[in-house]
Amino acid sequence: MPPQRELGVAVVGTGKMGADHVRRIEHVISGARVTAVVDIEAERVKSLAAGIEGCTAYTEPAAAMAADDVDAVLIASPGPAHETALLEALGRDLPVLCEKPLTPDAASALRVLEAEQRLGHRRIQVGFMRRYDAEYLRLKRLLGTGELGRTLMLHHRHRNLSMPPWFTNEMLINDSVVHEMDVTRWLLDQEITAVTVLKPAASTLAPEGMDDPQLVLFETESGAVVDVEIFGHCGYGYQVHAEAVCERGTARIGDEPGPRVSSEGRWGGRITPDYIERFEDAYDRQVQAWVDTTRRGEVAGPGVWDGYAAASVCEAGVLAQREGRRVEVELIERPALYR
Amino acid sequence: MPPQRELGVAVVGTGKMGADHVRRIEHVISGARVTAVVDIEAERVKSLAAGIEGCTAYTEPAAAMAADDVDAVLIASPGPAHETALLEALGRDLPVLCEKPLTPDAASALRVLEAEQRLGHRRIQVGFMRRYDAEYLRLKRLLGTGELGRTLMLHHRHRNLSMPPWFTNEMLINDSVVHEMDVTRWLLDQEITAVTVLKPAASTLAPEGMDDPQLVLFETESGAVVDVEIFGHCGYGYQVHAEAVCERGTARIGDEPGPRVSSEGRWGGRITPDYIERFEDAYDRQVQAWVDTTRRGEVAGPGVWDGYAAASVCEAGVLAQREGRRVEVELIERPALYR
Amino acid sequence: MPPQRELGVAVVGTGKMGADHVRRIEHVISGARVTAVVDIEAERVKSLAAGIEGCTAYTEPAAAMAADDVDAVLIASPGPAHETALLEALGRDLPVLCEKPLTPDAASALRVLEAEQRLGHRRIQVGFMRRYDAEYLRLKRLLGTGELGRTLMLHHRHRNLSMPPWFTNEMLINDSVVHEMDVTRWLLDQEITAVTVLKPAASTLAPEGMDDPQLVLFETESGAVVDVEIFGHCGYGYQVHAEAVCERGTARIGDEPGPRVSSEGRWGGRITPDYIERFEDAYDRQVQAWVDTTRRGEVAGPGVWDGYAAASVCEAGVLAQREGRRVEVELIERPALYR
Amino acid sequence: MPPQRELGVAVVGTGKMGADHVRRIEHVISGARVTAVVDIEAERVKSLAAGIEGCTAYTEPAAAMAADDVDAVLIASPGPAHETALLEALGRDLPVLCEKPLTPDAASALRVLEAEQRLGHRRIQVGFMRRYDAEYLRLKRLLGTGELGRTLMLHHRHRNLSMPPWFTNEMLINDSVVHEMDVTRWLLDQEITAVTVLKPAASTLAPEGMDDPQLVLFETESGAVVDVEIFGHCGYGYQVHAEAVCERGTARIGDEPGPRVSSEGRWGGRITPDYIERFEDAYDRQVQAWVDTTRRGEVAGPGVWDGYAAASVCEAGVLAQREGRRVEVELIERPALYR
Repeated sequence: MPPQRELGVAVVGTGKMGADHVRRIEHVISGARVTAVVDIEAERVKSLAAGIEGCTAYTEPAAAMAADDVDAVLIASPGPAHETALLEALGRDLPVLCEKPLTPDAASALRVLEAEQRLGHRRIQVGFMRRYDAEYLRLKRLLGTGELGRTLMLHHRHRNLSMPPWFTNEMLINDSVVHEMDVTRWLLDQEITAVTVLKPAASTLAPEGMDDPQLVLFETESGAVVDVEIFGHCGYGYQVHAEAVCERGTARIGDEPGPRVSSEGRWGGRITPDYIERFEDAYDRQVQAWVDTTRRGEVAGPGVWDGYAAASVCEAGVLAQREGRRVEVELIERPALYR
Repeated sequence: MPPQRELGVAVVGTGKMGADHVRRIEHVISGARVTAVVDIEAERVKSLAAGIEGCTAYTEPAAAMAADDVDAVLIASPGPAHETALLEALGRDLPVLCEKPLTPDAASALRVLEAEQRLGHRRIQVGFMRRYDAEYLRLKRLLGTGELGRTLMLHHRHRNLSMPPWFTNEMLINDSVVHEMDVTRWLLDQEITAVTVLKPAASTLAPEGMDDPQLVLFETESGAVVDVEIFGHCGYGYQVHAEAVCERGTARIGDEPGPRVSSEGRWGGRITPDYIERFEDAYDRQVQAWVDTTRRGEVAGPGVWDGYAAASVCEAGVLAQREGRRVEVELIERPALYR
Repeated sequence: MPPQRELGVAVVGTGKMGADHVRRIEHVISGARVTAVVDIEAERVKSLAAGIEGCTAYTEPAAAMAADDVDAVLIASPGPAHETALLEALGRDLPVLCEKPLTPDAASALRVLEAEQRLGHRRIQVGFMRRYDAEYLRLKRLLGTGELGRTLMLHHRHRNLSMPPWFTNEMLINDSVVHEMDVTRWLLDQEITAVTVLKPAASTLAPEGMDDPQLVLFETESGAVVDVEIFGHCGYGYQVHAEAVCERGTARIGDEPGPRVSSEGRWGGRITPDYIERFEDAYDRQVQAWVDTTRRGEVAGPGVWDGYAAASVCEAGVLAQREGRRVEVELIERPALYR
Repeated sequence: MPPQRELGVAVVGTGKMGADHVRRIEHVISGARVTAVVDIEAERVKSLAAGIEGCTAYTEPAAAMAADDVDAVLIASPGPAHETALLEALGRDLPVLCEKPLTPDAASALRVLEAEQRLGHRRIQVGFMRRYDAEYLRLKRLLGTGELGRTLMLHHRHRNLSMPPWFTNEMLINDSVVHEMDVTRWLLDQEITAVTVLKPAASTLAPEGMDDPQLVLFETESGAVVDVEIFGHCGYGYQVHAEAVCERGTARIGDEPGPRVSSEGRWGGRITPDYIERFEDAYDRQVQAWVDTTRRGEVAGPGVWDGYAAASVCEAGVLAQREGRRVEVELIERPALYR
C-alpha cells in the first residue's frame, strides 16, 4: 500500500448535521481534513472555515468542488438541494457521501442514477448510517451465517421522544420509516414490493392532525412480511428495536445497555433521548468507512440504487398512508452497475 | 363466613386436557373433589373413576349432572360437544368451567348465550387461562393504573415448537390466535371490530400447504391496532410475548425466566417446549379461582359473552385469512347480563 | 393409592407467620385442614378458631397435639419455644413442619436431633422455603445435571428494603444469612466448614450501631468459597440473587420478572418490597409439599440435620462477626438417620 | 485554537500490543502518525517501518526519542523495560502513553514517580483502558451524580476463556486483577488499603499448580469492601462484570449486548472470546484521548501515581495470595503533583 495523503473533504451544508460532520472529520475520525465548507449563508460558513486550518468557505457547491484541495464531497444540505450538488460532483468524478434522502422523490433519484450510470462507475454513498451500527451489524452477520434459516418476518420499533411542530405525517414515512426501509432491504438483501399503512387512533399527546403512532407494513420480493411501528411522540425517549423471525430461530436487537440500576423500587436503566446519542458510533463509523474506502479508490456502503429504491418505497408509503390501501412499489430494472 | 363443604366437580371429557384437570383438582388445588368423570369411552372413564375416592364414572354428561354429589361441571370434551353439555348444565343451574372454545362457531355460542340470559344469571366461565398468568396480570394491572395513558397498539408474538400434522390454517386462528383475541379484549376492555391476515412466504419447515407464520391484525372499538405473529413451527420452543404501546410508555412481557447461564461462548437460558409448562401456574390459578368463587356462589372470570365474542372474531379471522382482505366483526348488542 | 382423609393440622403460634400459614392451609393449598390453633394469647387464638370450621383453640401445644383430629403440627411460634414443642411432637410421633430456626442455638438443635434419632425415623421438616422457589429449583436442577461441572464459588446477594428497629447485627446472620447458609448446603450438597465476616463502613441509612451491609464468606467441605452480601437497609426493595461459578460455566438467578416498562427516559420494572411477595409461591409450594408427603407417610424436604447444621454455622457466623476473624464450624458426625 | 500538525508517535515495543497500537494510530484514530517504531528485534521493526510512510525503525528507545519527528512516545515493551524508557522520555520532556504495568514493582514505579516530580509536571499516562469503556464510564458518571449515595461495596467478576501455559498465580494478580484495582480506585476515587486472597479448591480445568479461580478482597480508605472473582480458565469466554452497592441503590454493568437469539430451545447471545474484542472501543478511545490531550499540551487519564498505587496493591496482593492472610498496602504520601 503506497503512502496516502489525507482526503480533502468539502462539506456542503453546514446546518446541524453538516456542522456535526465537520466536527467529526476534524476531531473524531482519521485520514481526512475539511478543506472546504459550503453554505448559502455566507457569514456562517466564513466563520466556520476560519476556525479550521487550510479550510476555505464557499457559497456555491460547484466552486468548492472545483478547488484543487477538494478530493471528495459530503452533502448535508436540505434534500431539495441534493440533485444539483450530486450531478455536479458526478460531473467532476468526485466521491460523495450524501446524507439521506438521496433526493426527495423517485424521479429525481432516477436522474442521479442515470448520471452515475453514464459516468460508468459508482461514486456516491448514501448516509444510511444504521448499516454501521454495532447491533445491526451483528444481526446482519448472524442472518448471513444462515444458521437461523431464511428470514420470514421483521418486526421494527422506531420511537421518538417527540417531533418538532412542523413534522408532518409524510415525514414520518420519508424521514423516519425510511431508515427501516433501508435496513429491511439491507438485512434481507432484496427489494420491498408493496406498502400498507395502518393508523391507530392517535395519541392525545401527538399534535393536532398527526396520525401517531402508525403501523407500516412492507412486503418483499421473497414474500417476507415486515411491520414497522413508527411513533413520533412516545414521550419517553428514542428507542429502535428490530426482531428477525427466521425458519429456525428469532433474533432481537435494541434493548438498552447498562448500567442496570436498582433504586426506589425499580430496576432498569436509562433510555437515550435522541438518535444522535443512540447512533453516535454509527455516524462515526460511517464517515470513517467512507474516508477509508475513498482513499483506497473504492466505493462501498449504500449507493444510488439504495437511495432510489428508498425514494420509491417512500412514495408508495406516503400514498398508502394517504389512501388507506396497499400500494405496490414500482422500480426500474436494476442496472448492471448496481448488481 | 359459614363453613363450606368441598365442591363436587363432574369433569366432562377425560382426554389430555380433562385428565390434567382431574389431576389438578385432586392433587394441586383445594376446596374441590372430582365426584364424577364423564367420557363416551366407557372403559377409560371407569378405570379413571376407580382411582379416585367417591368418584363415579358416567358416559353421559346429563347423568353426571343429575347426581347429588355433583355441584359444578368442568367441560373438557371436544368443542362440538360443548353446546349440549352447556345447555344441560344451564338447565340444572350448575356452575361451569368450559375449556375454550365455548362452542366452535358464533351461532352456537349465541344459543348458549341466550340460554344463560333466559336463566337470568351467569353460570359459565370460559377457560381463557392467560388471564390468570402472573405476567399478563401484572401487565393488566399496570395498564389499569393509567400511569402509561391509553393503550394505542399491542404487539403479540405466539410461537410454537411445532404443530401436530392434522393442524390446519384455520386452527392457527381458532385454537392459537384465539388466546390473543381474548387477551386483547381483556387488556383493552373493548371489542375487536375488524381482522386482517397477512401471509408471508411460508417457512420451508411448515407442513405442505400451511401458511406459517402469519401476521394477524385486529382493530378495536377505540381504534387501537393490534398485531399478532402466529408461528406454528418456529422450531425452537414455545414463546409468548406481548407489548403494549401506550401514550406515555410501553410495557413488554414474555422474556424467559432464569437461570441465566454462561457457557460455551453463549449467555442465556432455556425456553419452555410447550404451553403446558409455560402456563402451568395459570391453569392452576384458573381452576382454583373458579372453585373459590363458585363456593362463594359467585361468578367471575371470562364468561359466555367472551366466548361468543371470541367465536365471532375467529369467524372473521378465518374469512380474512381465506380471502386475503379485511373483515369486519359482527356482534349482537351486548345484553345487560354481560355489562 | 387408597383414599385419604384430609390432614388435620395444629398450627402452633398465630403471629404474622402462623396466621399466614392458617390462611394458606385453609384457602390456598389442598389436602389439609386446620383442626387446632395454639397460642398463649387465649383471646386471639379463640377468635381465630371461631372462624374455621372444625377448628379448636388451645393455649398449650401439648394439649393440641393430644387431640384426635390433629395429625400433624406446623410450628410458627418464636424460636425459643420450638424445642419444647418439637420434643412433644416427637414424643407423640407426629409429623412437623417447623419454621426456621429449628431452635435458636446448636446445643438445643442437637437435643432435638438426638430425640428424633431415639424415635428412629425422621418426623421434622424445617421451613427453609427457598428450596421450593422456582428459580432456585431450576438452578439446583441445572447444577445437578453436571453439564457445568463442579461448583467452585457461589455469589449471593440478599437485600432488604429496611429492617425493624429492634433488628440486630446478630439477626443479620441468624435470621437473614441463615437462608443463604441453607441454600448453599442444599445447592452444593455439602457442609459449610468455616465462616468469615467483613464489615464495610456502614451505610448512613442503617440504624446507629448496625454494621450494614456485611460480606459473609463461607468455605465448604469441597473447598468451595461462597460470598454473601447481606444488606438490611438497601432502601429500594427486596432482592435475592445467586450466581454459581462452575468449572464450565456460570448460572445466575434473581433478575426481576416483567413487565419491562419504558417510560420517562427509563426502561425497567418493579422490585418486590418484601420476602412475602417475592417468595409467596415458594411458601405455598413448601406447605403443599409437606402436606402431600405427610399424607403419603413420607418425610422429605430439609430436616433436623439441616436445622442443626444451620444453627452451628450461625453460631460460627456470629462469632466471626463479633471478633473479626475466620471461625471454623463444629459439627458432630452425621448420624446414619440423616445420611 | 491554532492549527496543529499531527502528533509524531514513537511506538516502543512491537509485539502483539505494540503492533496493534501501530495499526490503531495509522488506521483508526486521528491526529497522530507513527513516525518511529522501536524493537530489539531489528528485522521485525525494519519491515514494520517500511510499510508506514515517514516512519523510521530503531532498536533503541533513546535513539527514537531523540528524532525530530517524534513528539510523543507509546511504550508497549515488556514491563521490565519500562523504567529505562520512561526515564529517558521524562529526560526529554516527552509525553508518554505507557501500557500497564507502569513498572513491575512499587520500588521502580516510585523511581519513575520521583523523576516526574523532579521534572515538575505530569507527562506520563498509564494504559488502564477500562476507564475509557462506555459501560464503566456510564457507571462512573452515575456514581458521580450522587443519586445512589455513597458506594459501600463493589463486586467484580473477571473471567477469561483460558490463559497461556506460562501464566502464573502471581500474574492473576499483576496482569488481570490489576484492572479491577485501578477501576476500584477510579470509581471510588480513593486508595486501596488492604488485600486478602481466598483460594477455592481449583477447577480441574486449570493447569496443575494454579489456584483458579480466586476471590480477591480489597478494603479502601473510606472502608468500602470490594470483592473480585478472578477466573483464568472459565472455559466459556471473556466476561467482565461490576456491581456497585450504594446507600440508596445498586448498579451493575457487564451483561452482554444483543442480538438476543432464540433457537434450539435456548434464548441468549454470544460472549466475546477475549479482551481485545470486548474492549476494542476502549483501546481506541484511550489512544485517541491521549493524542487529543497531548496535542493540546494537556495530560489527563491515569498517571504515574495510579501506576505506582497499582504496583503497591499488586505487591500486597501477591503476598496475601502467597501467605493466605490480609496484607496492608503501603503507600507514600501523595505528592502535590498528583493531587
